[in-house]
Amino acid sequence: MSDSVRIGVLGRGTVGGAFVELVGERAGAVEAATGRRPEVVGVLRRSKGDFGEILAASDIVVELIGGTDPARDYVLRALREGRHVVSANKQLIAQHGDELFDAARESGVQLRFEAAVAGVIPVIRVIQESLAATEITKVFGIVNGTTNFILTEMAKTGASYSDALGRAQELGYAEADPSDDVGGADAAAKMAILARLAFHTPVSLGDVAFEGIQNVQPDDLAYAKEFGLSLKLLGVAERHVEGVSVRVFPCFLYRGHPLAPVEGPFNAVMVEAPSITEITMSGPGAGGVETASAVLGDVASIVAGRAPVHAVRERLEVVRDVQSAFYLHLEVADRPGVLAQIAAVLGDNQVSVKSVVQWGLGDDARLVMVMHQCAESGFHAALAEMGKLEFLRSPPRAIRVIEEEFV
Amino acid sequence: MSDSVRIGVLGRGTVGGAFVELVGERAGAVEAATGRRPEVVGVLRRSKGDFGEILAASDIVVELIGGTDPARDYVLRALREGRHVVSANKQLIAQHGDELFDAARESGVQLRFEAAVAGVIPVIRVIQESLAATEITKVFGIVNGTTNFILTEMAKTGASYSDALGRAQELGYAEADPSDDVGGADAAAKMAILARLAFHTPVSLGDVAFEGIQNVQPDDLAYAKEFGLSLKLLGVAERHVEGVSVRVFPCFLYRGHPLAPVEGPFNAVMVEAPSITEITMSGPGAGGVETASAVLGDVASIVAGRAPVHAVRERLEVVRDVQSAFYLHLEVADRPGVLAQIAAVLGDNQVSVKSVVQWGLGDDARLVMVMHQCAESGFHAALAEMGKLEFLRSPPRAIRVIEEEFV
Repeated sequence: MSDSVRIGVLGRGTVGGAFVELVGERAGAVEAATGRRPEVVGVLRRSKGDFGEILAASDIVVELIGGTDPARDYVLRALREGRHVVSANKQLIAQHGDELFDAARESGVQLRFEAAVAGVIPVIRVIQESLAATEITKVFGIVNGTTNFILTEMAKTGASYSDALGRAQELGYAEADPSDDVGGADAAAKMAILARLAFHTPVSLGDVAFEGIQNVQPDDLAYAKEFGLSLKLLGVAERHVEGVSVRVFPCFLYRGHPLAPVEGPFNAVMVEAPSITEITMSGPGAGGVETASAVLGDVASIVAGRAPVHAVRERLEVVRDVQSAFYLHLEVADRPGVLAQIAAVLGDNQVSVKSVVQWGLGDDARLVMVMHQCAESGFHAALAEMGKLEFLRSPPRAIRVIEEEFV
Repeated sequence: MSDSVRIGVLGRGTVGGAFVELVGERAGAVEAATGRRPEVVGVLRRSKGDFGEILAASDIVVELIGGTDPARDYVLRALREGRHVVSANKQLIAQHGDELFDAARESGVQLRFEAAVAGVIPVIRVIQESLAATEITKVFGIVNGTTNFILTEMAKTGASYSDALGRAQELGYAEADPSDDVGGADAAAKMAILARLAFHTPVSLGDVAFEGIQNVQPDDLAYAKEFGLSLKLLGVAERHVEGVSVRVFPCFLYRGHPLAPVEGPFNAVMVEAPSITEITMSGPGAGGVETASAVLGDVASIVAGRAPVHAVRERLEVVRDVQSAFYLHLEVADRPGVLAQIAAVLGDNQVSVKSVVQWGLGDDARLVMVMHQCAESGFHAALAEMGKLEFLRSPPRAIRVIEEEFV
């Protein structure tokens, strides 16, 4: 197995378990992308396993313990002994970043930590690689899913802060002790990391001014609706002429703002620079498999070493008859039996109608219908049959509809 | 200059000009990120310059000619002679990708083309690197800014298709011959590239079923409002059990869909996979400096070779007194002069009021105000002064407001 990449995993909580499972499922994909197959050679648990042994057996150390002790010691030792490290640990990077980056640079190894900020959103890679040459002026967004869930719940149901928090705890979006999330400290650590990377300057946790959402009142949200606002816990890192500011605070956004529609446990980050205007990225803020997926992306990048050249892995068939929902606009003679005939043509072709609106136009009528998902071939067969009906006043017009509902 | 990276630029149109300028401005940033300074050693114009000479002098060739002839020959020659290539040319990659990827792999060089799809949105990097190990099931989005501008204009103003197209041409969002954009061929080429990278399978332009927006009627948009829909030209690449489908078509989206709020010349792409749920990315779809910025990001990645380790470049001051807008909630005695006193306290501290709503509460009143941007120190000084006013019934509550308006 000279072409395998040996991975030592520190920590076997939710993310650690999901990561080990994901490596099992996706080892072939990593091998196809990078030429080497990842293999988990050891997992350090609180009560079982020896760090020194796992380190000796590993090419890459994946740190999923959380907290700074003993994570800091383990990661430093791994870097100094020439191992690449992937970490999902925001507190570790926010509090000890300088020393860790120095150790990685001295050993000529990679230290990657995409999963530490904003879940599956690849904001670290975009800032460090896509925007490596870009003069970023501002990075801001919703980087804590717990608080975004609570604020969404309060806005939608009129619930009090404490009731919404209870609901978040029931659903697993908030911990039993939620103080780091609701007080803003979690978001502050993430913003310290983003500010450091965007502006290439050291930013400590003490540099971040943060407030939480504990004092938000239901009537703040109610009145806000009068102004067309929605309330989010925002992290904002900004470059100024005099330096940099990094803050976390609850904040109203106007309806047209790109972050206003981000709801529930989702995160979203915006990056602004003169040469790009802005990039907005959003996605789930946490979750075991989502975090594990971000960690595996970092592992694959380390193994790839440099950018992969696209290679064909299989030759898939091109499928042409897919399922779609449709909007259908018909102008017809306004007389009994017309709607029944149209419905029959649709039904004969396995097309089911979701909604219909009809307007009178003198002797004629206009029918606008929205269909449920159906095979496109069936819908087009129905359209062809309809085209022959003598009561049709003009050719049918059809446009597809995406009818899935999102969070 | 042994540590400079020599760049040969093919093409000197809008993007070529912006790229040469951006290299001049950001050479120091690329050097800080990668250790080597980029330098433009030659620019090939239609009527001036010799490709062979530029190739001989370059480490990296940047192809910004567009079209496939002579771009294909130039890029193939560069790759075969061991040069890394960055291209912004969607037709070249969509039509000749197989042969170009093979040439890059054989020579062991990089071929990057972030700017070919979706402007500044780093969707190529996210698919090829962040999601290298991820089983992507669907990639879809708005990948043509011209058509999104036209559809937004029709929806907002009720304009006909041809009037909205005229407006897009006036503003530079549509070309004199707009047929590739409005007919869907441009989006089809981009979706062929995304499908190929997401599913690791060859996808030719002929595999993409595409429709344009030329037949969209103003009343389709009007009735759609009754259903709460917005109309977009979508590109959709999907993995099926039997293979893959790649399509471009006008499509209605329900209000809650993440792509529904993407307006004007912006692009947005969503990627779905079981292990990430979904990632949504949006940003400007084109523009000279935006495209040049994506090209420069690719150049920096080639020079970096592997992932950069964060390094401190300067030590910025932490700025604490920034400008913010605020919402302010006050409960006060309902008597003459109260509003005047509050307004005076705000004015004395250079805080200007944007809007006020007042509700009666028996003997008391509730005031909800939104301020314009002001120094936070001034606002907090005003709050402290207000706290001493005897007619205040409870402590003032303040929340920041983001009041910028976005496209």
